[in-house]
Amino acid sequence: MKQVLLEHRLSMKSFLESFLDSKSEDFSSVNEWGSDVISRLKGFVLNGKLVRGCLVLMSAKMFSNSIYDEENALKAAAAIELVHSSLLIHDDIIDKDDLRRGSPAIHNQYEEYASKEGFKNHKHFGASFGICAGDIGFFMANELLSSINLPEHNKSALLKLFNSELCNVGLAEMQDINFEYLKDNVSEEDIINMYRFKTARYTFSLPMMMGAIIAGADENTVNKLGLIGEDLGIIFQIKDDELGIFSDEKTLGKSIGIDIKDNKKTVYCTLLMSDSNDSELKILKNIFGNKNITNEDIDTVRRIIIDKGIHEKISSRIKSLELEAITLIDMLNIDDNSRNILFKILKYNLDRTS
Amino acid sequence: MKQVLLEHRLSMKSFLESFLDSKSEDFSSVNEWGSDVISRLKGFVLNGKLVRGCLVLMSAKMFSNSIYDEENALKAAAAIELVHSSLLIHDDIIDKDDLRRGSPAIHNQYEEYASKEGFKNHKHFGASFGICAGDIGFFMANELLSSINLPEHNKSALLKLFNSELCNVGLAEMQDINFEYLKDNVSEEDIINMYRFKTARYTFSLPMMMGAIIAGADENTVNKLGLIGEDLGIIFQIKDDELGIFSDEKTLGKSIGIDIKDNKKTVYCTLLMSDSNDSELKILKNIFGNKNITNEDIDTVRRIIIDKGIHEKISSRIKSLELEAITLIDMLNIDDNSRNILFKILKYNLDRTS
Repeated sequence: MKQVLLEHRLSMKSFLESFLDSKSEDFSSVNEWGSDVISRLKGFVLNGKLVRGCLVLMSAKMFSNSIYDEENALKAAAAIELVHSSLLIHDDIIDKDDLRRGSPAIHNQYEEYASKEGFKNHKHFGASFGICAGDIGFFMANELLSSINLPEHNKSALLKLFNSELCNVGLAEMQDINFEYLKDNVSEEDIINMYRFKTARYTFSLPMMMGAIIAGADENTVNKLGLIGEDLGIIFQIKDDELGIFSDEKTLGKSIGIDIKDNKKTVYCTLLMSDSNDSELKILKNIFGNKNITNEDIDTVRRIIIDKGIHEKISSRIKSLELEAITLIDMLNIDDNSRNILFKILKYNLDRTS
Repeated sequence: MKQVLLEHRLSMKSFLESFLDSKSEDFSSVNEWGSDVISRLKGFVLNGKLVRGCLVLMSAKMFSNSIYDEENALKAAAAIELVHSSLLIHDDIIDKDDLRRGSPAIHNQYEEYASKEGFKNHKHFGASFGICAGDIGFFMANELLSSINLPEHNKSALLKLFNSELCNVGLAEMQDINFEYLKDNVSEEDIINMYRFKTARYTFSLPMMMGAIIAGADENTVNKLGLIGEDLGIIFQIKDDELGIFSDEKTLGKSIGIDIKDNKKTVYCTLLMSDSNDSELKILKNIFGNKNITNEDIDTVRRIIIDKGIHEKISSRIKSLELEAITLIDMLNIDDNSRNILFKILKYNLDRTS
């Protein structure tokens, strides 16, 4: 994974930078907020990991045979990163997160501006501007994507895929918000389904499928990549849940137990709840959703997870996802080097420690 | 204008209805929020005036000569109406408006759901779901637009225009929000510029340009329609401001003086402020932005507007917009019937009483 990022990050960054610079010029003719929002977006987008964009480039190269149209691939990669940043801007308003990528979240930056100007309701001003900034990012991404130079049929397929997957991300986001408000346990199936659309298809399937469409790959290949992406992404997310409970702060680079504090519905949480007896449930319900949990509380959760054999259950889920991914990757009509890259991403997701 | 709406509203409504029904089916495979959000959007979109969509259809027909592709035109019309409803959903969160089109605003509907479920922070839940619902609408609109059957060059132009104008709407919305928070007067130029991008180009230019592109009109014609739309829309908005101060509740169908209460920066407000002396300014500043203004206060504003000759100033602005529109409409290469329709829209905007 890191190799994929390393290879493509630099070219992505410089493309995004010059694209946003040109937009800043266009937007300046509208009003003073044009260059303002672009400069904030620029800082925000370029600070991201750019995973999705790099996967577009990787996939476009993988399926391009001899003619690799880098300009097209960079446009698609930049479009997905713009949308991703815009979704995060809205997400931070929804989750009331004031920090993102090491800096104040966009709504927070506008809140600070309003506060400096002495506006009343500066919090609402910040959220309002954040909503607008995200909306602008969505439109910019679609504008950029529409400038890709492809035969009409492939271009329609690309735009349709992009926007329909993003609709699904929006629906999965609604489901996720609702889960957080729910006190009751939710089914493993519902959680995996949420992972499928909010993380897996969006982070892995969509970029790889976009790259393949740009390279002119056939529909069957594109659909296979969609399924591979689902497997890769669900593994990634389950490992994320595991690290959030079992890693330590130093290795992970962020605090442990946030999901427990937020009563986030994870696969660990749901299996734990459904396997616990009444007295264990009583203990767990005092811990999940409690903002003031201690390290001892986290240890209690860990212990019950181990006692109940939840690890083994989850390992078997991951194993079947892994096997499915391997089978599908083997079926792709690509060279050994490309196949190896996909296997490396699979291995990275399986072994991730941060 | 009413004629244009009458002619096209029915076919638009039935197209939108069956499109949303098909989306409801697609979305149901994601999660239970899929059909939920579609059913709310359906009620919301179909309740609108559908002005923009009808203008797309009018323009597509006007420039199509013999071959009018109704399916394409309906898709573009539906796309702009979907985006419009989605922008209103976000707008209602920003303006904290709980009612829209005679029913609870979308964020308000979700707030009610959260309240019934006994969720804490049901207001924030409602806003969060409203943000997601709007986002989904934007992506759906772009997906629909990408399915239009046009030569690659025209299709790119259509998608580029659509999304770049919507970026500008977002920037104008930011400007408008900032204006409302500002205590100081803003320049007439800034206000007209805000009207240009937030109302005129978005409500009149964009739909007419989209219709013309679909019909295969040349670039020069499309650009002329853009300018005509600016004139039509700025006239429409200034008349709106006038009615908001000088009409009566019965004729207008909504309460008078809201813009004054909200300290909304209108052309009337800015000309009034810049032409007033210190003692008049003192009176006006106690009225503008005061949520408890009386009918007498509104009468005071009206009297100063008349005394200062603001009406005459604004009439001369409108006159030159009207003349420019007439010149441009005369230059269009269309039949007399089409030209008459455009003149009727101009006349409607000039004479509107509600």
